[in-house]
Amino acid sequence: MPAIELIGLEGLPEIDQRAELGDLIASAANEAQRNFVAGDIVVVAQKIISKAEGRLVKLDSVTPSGMAREIAARQQRDPRLVELILSESKRIVRMDSRVLITETRHGFVCANSGIDHSNIPDSDTVALLPEDADRSAQQLRSKLVELLGLPVAVIITDTFGRAWREGLVNVAIGVSGLEPLVDYRGSEDDHGHVLNATVLALADEVAAASGLIMRKSSRIPVVIARGVRYQVGDGNASALIRPKERDLFR
Amino acid sequence: MPAIELIGLEGLPEIDQRAELGDLIASAANEAQRNFVAGDIVVVAQKIISKAEGRLVKLDSVTPSGMAREIAARQQRDPRLVELILSESKRIVRMDSRVLITETRHGFVCANSGIDHSNIPDSDTVALLPEDADRSAQQLRSKLVELLGLPVAVIITDTFGRAWREGLVNVAIGVSGLEPLVDYRGSEDDHGHVLNATVLALADEVAAASGLIMRKSSRIPVVIARGVRYQVGDGNASALIRPKERDLFR
Repeated sequence: MPAIELIGLEGLPEIDQRAELGDLIASAANEAQRNFVAGDIVVVAQKIISKAEGRLVKLDSVTPSGMAREIAARQQRDPRLVELILSESKRIVRMDSRVLITETRHGFVCANSGIDHSNIPDSDTVALLPEDADRSAQQLRSKLVELLGLPVAVIITDTFGRAWREGLVNVAIGVSGLEPLVDYRGSEDDHGHVLNATVLALADEVAAASGLIMRKSSRIPVVIARGVRYQVGDGNASALIRPKERDLFR
Repeated sequence: MPAIELIGLEGLPEIDQRAELGDLIASAANEAQRNFVAGDIVVVAQKIISKAEGRLVKLDSVTPSGMAREIAARQQRDPRLVELILSESKRIVRMDSRVLITETRHGFVCANSGIDHSNIPDSDTVALLPEDADRSAQQLRSKLVELLGLPVAVIITDTFGRAWREGLVNVAIGVSGLEPLVDYRGSEDDHGHVLNATVLALADEVAAASGLIMRKSSRIPVVIARGVRYQVGDGNASALIRPKERDLFR
């Protein structure tokens, strides 16, 4: 029977900018007697990547623009937070009385440019998304491959809202070591019909699966996905961003 | 370590309208010596539900309207297929030269009202979505609980495209025995901050996870998700449809 296992990695310390994530992940797995195997996908929550990369910003250090002040007043939010949201975005997609949906510098469409302050010890501090989560994934993968002596892939995930459907799901914002999309176009189903238009977002399905373990309030920012069939490759998460001209779902 | 296992159920026969899915699933699991345990989520591909419920339509039996003919001519598709897509929809969201994105009678937004002809033996036949996949899930769950003597939940999935992101993912279109959304609003993170606006789409994450095994071209239309923490309840998949007035992502 084909089977996939998702294993939540417990025992990681609070992550700060001095943290060497690769070392910490390898030793937490070792400690828990959960050895990695070749082909494992190491799924990592964006928050600890941001912490390790020093992407925390003290609101004290932010001077809000006039536009940030105006939006903040309408939304009854901190103008310094709104300033950060705007400065991390290319454009505002929509806004209401509570939230800004933006397109981030990376091209992701999400609430508040992915900035939040959950799971951060200091209440006056927020975490930005990694500058380049594909690069972060690549660096972490190199380190893990070196430490473990095994080929593994890395996916960095964040929790995004969606059009048309209620509730947030984990998606892939950084990928290394696997092709995030699986292209079935031109292949045949079991009855010999050609399957057209079928490209599956494998990296997002792995991210969503890990979200079942990686809950906000529990201390499990790393999930090992074992048994997933994927194509090794150098694709990255930017391939998951759908360009406007190809997007009929907006 | 918290862990989740996803087990693909092999050995199901080709499903037709005479099929008793509950019996077939229970005996395939038994055959494979994969006993169910209390709390398992049985994730089932929409296609076999539609087949078992006789939701297959021979294109020969369809008379296309003028509108269907016109769209079909523009898209170089079969006008009878377009007729079915229109008749299963409440409205057309968008269309281009190849596809119709519709809002189905159920309220789902997807390509071609969820109609396709992959994995159907007869090349002149297509499968419609179940009439009411929540009801289908409920009936299957009742049957499985009766046969197994264990509490299990059921999720029926289909593969949908999305706004903003490339690639299809599996989502939940029918749910029985669990609450599809997990509401963390008002709860605290590990540092005592209140997590606002965090409602997770658990049923969609389970569906996406199952998509990693349930590939179009492989004969595994049923996945057992074991170890998922969920709230038992009588929520259904219609709770996953976001009403327009609350949707800032469109």
